[in-house]
Amino acid sequence: MARILYDLTASGDRRFSPYCWRTKLALAHKGLDYETVATRFTDIDRLNDGPRLTLPVLDDNDVRIVDSWAIAEHLEGHYPDAPSLFPGSKAHARFMNNWTPTIHPPLLRLIVLDVYNALDAADQAYFRPDREAKFGMTLEAFVEDQDAHLKAFRAALNPIRETLKIQPFISGDTPAYADYIPAGAFLWAEAVSECEIVASDDPVAGWMQRVKAVLN
Amino acid sequence: MARILYDLTASGDRRFSPYCWRTKLALAHKGLDYETVATRFTDIDRLNDGPRLTLPVLDDNDVRIVDSWAIAEHLEGHYPDAPSLFPGSKAHARFMNNWTPTIHPPLLRLIVLDVYNALDAADQAYFRPDREAKFGMTLEAFVEDQDAHLKAFRAALNPIRETLKIQPFISGDTPAYADYIPAGAFLWAEAVSECEIVASDDPVAGWMQRVKAVLN
Repeated sequence: MARILYDLTASGDRRFSPYCWRTKLALAHKGLDYETVATRFTDIDRLNDGPRLTLPVLDDNDVRIVDSWAIAEHLEGHYPDAPSLFPGSKAHARFMNNWTPTIHPPLLRLIVLDVYNALDAADQAYFRPDREAKFGMTLEAFVEDQDAHLKAFRAALNPIRETLKIQPFISGDTPAYADYIPAGAFLWAEAVSECEIVASDDPVAGWMQRVKAVLN
Repeated sequence: MARILYDLTASGDRRFSPYCWRTKLALAHKGLDYETVATRFTDIDRLNDGPRLTLPVLDDNDVRIVDSWAIAEHLEGHYPDAPSLFPGSKAHARFMNNWTPTIHPPLLRLIVLDVYNALDAADQAYFRPDREAKFGMTLEAFVEDQDAHLKAFRAALNPIRETLKIQPFISGDTPAYADYIPAGAFLWAEAVSECEIVASDDPVAGWMQRVKAVLN
């Protein structure tokens, strides 16, 4: 097999990394076959001898690429005849790559306990102390007041919501990498959480259904 | 004169509307000559007989266009041989048009009293009660705690800041309408306020200098 994606995995083979989802959408967009290696947090250290990597890691034949943005640029450069991930210009996707961090924090406040509960025991033992040190509080305290976090998350979506009232995709008439970056956040939540992070009549919900069709 | 822009104006002929600045940058980008009509808030009612307009209003020969986005689309459609306002795709600019409202509110908290002080007496008499009713508090109360508002505004700039660490313009190597939309916010502040809304070593400050060169 020529292409291997190391894909962050929870119990029940749930694939939940928002960054890995960006890459899976990009590979599907390009029509490229690949196999995934289910990878737990505590498996990542075994991927290499050097500094700890972050996922996604893509082995494309004899080339290893780390980081979802670097992978997108690699795929665009190496497979120019496949549909472009950056139609028109790369600048739009780059902005979305810098905007999407504004929606991750309120989403994390909604789902981080679901992420924790989805992990197997070895990963839970790594995840809880690591994240609680970062947050400066227990996971349970971090997710308290879900109503406020849901409101904050939905408000943070306004720039894409207003865009999706006008056109079917963030990229315009058809999806591209500018869509896949924020879409990863929704696939992250969907993999581990029952939380209805957007209302069913939200334009964002319809867009996510259209983006997911890229995976079929 | 073929082209007239009704341009929101304070005392001392200061032109401060962020939306009018978007249009002036777009006209300069297209290389189109125009004259402006200095227009106070209290002059706007005299522009037409129907519902109150918002500025910018552009009379392009015998066509009147209202709203900065509609004007940009008009200019792009009617002057296709001039440099494109939407190189690559219009989707990026549309997203910036929906993202920029996230930076206006914290900026308003910094400068609205400066806006008020810049107006002439007739406009002040309209502006204060209108805005205080909207804010539910006095202008003075609205701008209290400038340090917090400055911090919030600068944090809200992160998506463009991170982008401008990588490339000279939001649009990529050269400026276009995706830049002019947020740039209008900075020209708004500059027209009426002494507040240093971004630090001089912020990548956003360097970008603004480059964008302003379009006006020369």
